[in-house]
Amino acid sequence: MPETASRPTLEAVAARAGVSRATVSRVVNGGNGVRKPLAERVRRAVEELGYVPNQAARSLVTKRNDAVAVIIAEPETRIFADPYFGLQLRGISKELTAHDTQLVLLLTEGRDDYARVGRYLAGGHVDGALVFSLHLDDPLPGMIQRAGVPTVFGGRPGWSDGTHKVVYVDSDNRGGAREAVRHLVGLGRTRIGHITGALDQTSAVDRLDGYRDVMGDADPRLVVESDFTPAGGERAMRTLLDRCPDLDAVFAANDLTASGALRVLRERGLRVPEDVAVVGFDDMLPVAEQTEPPLTTVRQNIEEMGRLMARLLLRGLDRDASGETVDDLPHSVVLPTTLVRRASA
Amino acid sequence: MPETASRPTLEAVAARAGVSRATVSRVVNGGNGVRKPLAERVRRAVEELGYVPNQAARSLVTKRNDAVAVIIAEPETRIFADPYFGLQLRGISKELTAHDTQLVLLLTEGRDDYARVGRYLAGGHVDGALVFSLHLDDPLPGMIQRAGVPTVFGGRPGWSDGTHKVVYVDSDNRGGAREAVRHLVGLGRTRIGHITGALDQTSAVDRLDGYRDVMGDADPRLVVESDFTPAGGERAMRTLLDRCPDLDAVFAANDLTASGALRVLRERGLRVPEDVAVVGFDDMLPVAEQTEPPLTTVRQNIEEMGRLMARLLLRGLDRDASGETVDDLPHSVVLPTTLVRRASA
Repeated sequence: MPETASRPTLEAVAARAGVSRATVSRVVNGGNGVRKPLAERVRRAVEELGYVPNQAARSLVTKRNDAVAVIIAEPETRIFADPYFGLQLRGISKELTAHDTQLVLLLTEGRDDYARVGRYLAGGHVDGALVFSLHLDDPLPGMIQRAGVPTVFGGRPGWSDGTHKVVYVDSDNRGGAREAVRHLVGLGRTRIGHITGALDQTSAVDRLDGYRDVMGDADPRLVVESDFTPAGGERAMRTLLDRCPDLDAVFAANDLTASGALRVLRERGLRVPEDVAVVGFDDMLPVAEQTEPPLTTVRQNIEEMGRLMARLLLRGLDRDASGETVDDLPHSVVLPTTLVRRASA
Repeated sequence: MPETASRPTLEAVAARAGVSRATVSRVVNGGNGVRKPLAERVRRAVEELGYVPNQAARSLVTKRNDAVAVIIAEPETRIFADPYFGLQLRGISKELTAHDTQLVLLLTEGRDDYARVGRYLAGGHVDGALVFSLHLDDPLPGMIQRAGVPTVFGGRPGWSDGTHKVVYVDSDNRGGAREAVRHLVGLGRTRIGHITGALDQTSAVDRLDGYRDVMGDADPRLVVESDFTPAGGERAMRTLLDRCPDLDAVFAANDLTASGALRVLRERGLRVPEDVAVVGFDDMLPVAEQTEPPLTTVRQNIEEMGRLMARLLLRGLDRDASGETVDDLPHSVVLPTTLVRRASA
């Protein structure tokens, strides 16, 4: 391995600033009781020498690593193929950075790696965890619970045994889906299909429930199960058209799925929205603007969801540290959605 | 914060397996000297109870966290906008997973956050670091060096004072660029422009050098500086056409830049390759196949670069642990490139 320069010590900083080791330690650990000009001198010496405090020693004092793990319950390849995750991470990153807390993204190839993630979490390397894209039978929440780190979830987790308080941030998936389908009904459409998301995720189940709220007694062949991907949207659209050639509208569970559906409609020579109107979900840019035609969709503020997850976790950590009462714990948040009209419906 | 279930203890595992604490500890830490049937019983108890070993205690024995940090010297937003990074991470993720080592991606909003990254690295949370997309005046290598963690770089770092051994994995950027430009010369093109990458990165400098190796005495107006992005490619292509309307070929420093250049050529009514031939760099899929026309480009194996970085680091860590001699250290690796012919040149 490359040779490394010797690290400047606490002693070197104390000598440079002309103060005691204890004073340097207090300043570095953010402690009070050091006069301002003295603290300034220490900070200057820390900067000049490029001193990095020993984190292990530091966390003995502060009990904090100033680091938060993010775990997305998807293989690494999916995380970089779906812009949804980048958006949610953007919100998380901004909020953690504003609190000088390091974002530690723990990537995996799949479920076989979750035991390792559990070990890392249990190892005391982070103060808490943000977890999203859970699936119904996901072993991850159990792992995280055993690791004993405070956690906020993105999306309502599918379990709910009432014995554990779960904090999550979600969008109003069911309400948004209802609005999408009502919009299609308002356009005079009657044969409205639904391409679902991955039904082992609550977001997909809630959007399907929203569709059913409006279309309660619709032909069951109008619902085709899919997986939130463009390729899945193409397959589902072909199935829908084969089953119901008289289809006059489609509500797709997300924009990526809708983009696949639009390609198949074009391929089959059907005009959008004249023959088949299409509504998506997410308002993922630039995807939703660049489809042909541009996509009418349900906007959820994905970046804001990430920001709120981080904020709830940090607030919880601060309260744990200050010993406030349980009644004061952060509550789950469900963000509203809005219909964005473009050309497709 | 959500209440967490109490974690199963070492004692509970010992009781379940009917063995001593010391035996459990030895099995959990991969130590030898435990009879096979006994070890089996312990492993079963660990699994049944969902026991997670205390990593801090464990690493006192093994001196390893079984975790490697990845730091990309770009803001979080760029990492998720450019598929290059996802590809490199894919190779890293596969290799680390194959060695049951956790990939810890440390995201930042920008350079202001590097001190925090340095603190995390110095805190003993990871065994080593993989660093890529460095810029010439980047403070990151200094931070990492002070943190004292073994590091392998992706791309040749721009400094080289000869006093520190630096291990890196790179592509033959200069050779690949030469092949691209020679291909254009071979097509009979004489007014060959070059849209550079970000010239504070060695990959961009090396590709420019490769262009100059072939086009030594060309009109200097044929070279326009850019930044590896599609929007940058559009701007540079406009500049090139305004300066040199008789241009008959362009070598773009990467495929994203080339995709922007192709859009501008189409917009100006120029045919590719008839009027202007275009060659890119990377062979980034699906980008290079989906441009109009599909892109002739220089392929570098980005995923393999990631895999090799991880492999060199893990090998170095194993050798450090086994106390092998310095002569045995891993060496830097430069991977070959190949020209891939499609329709654009």
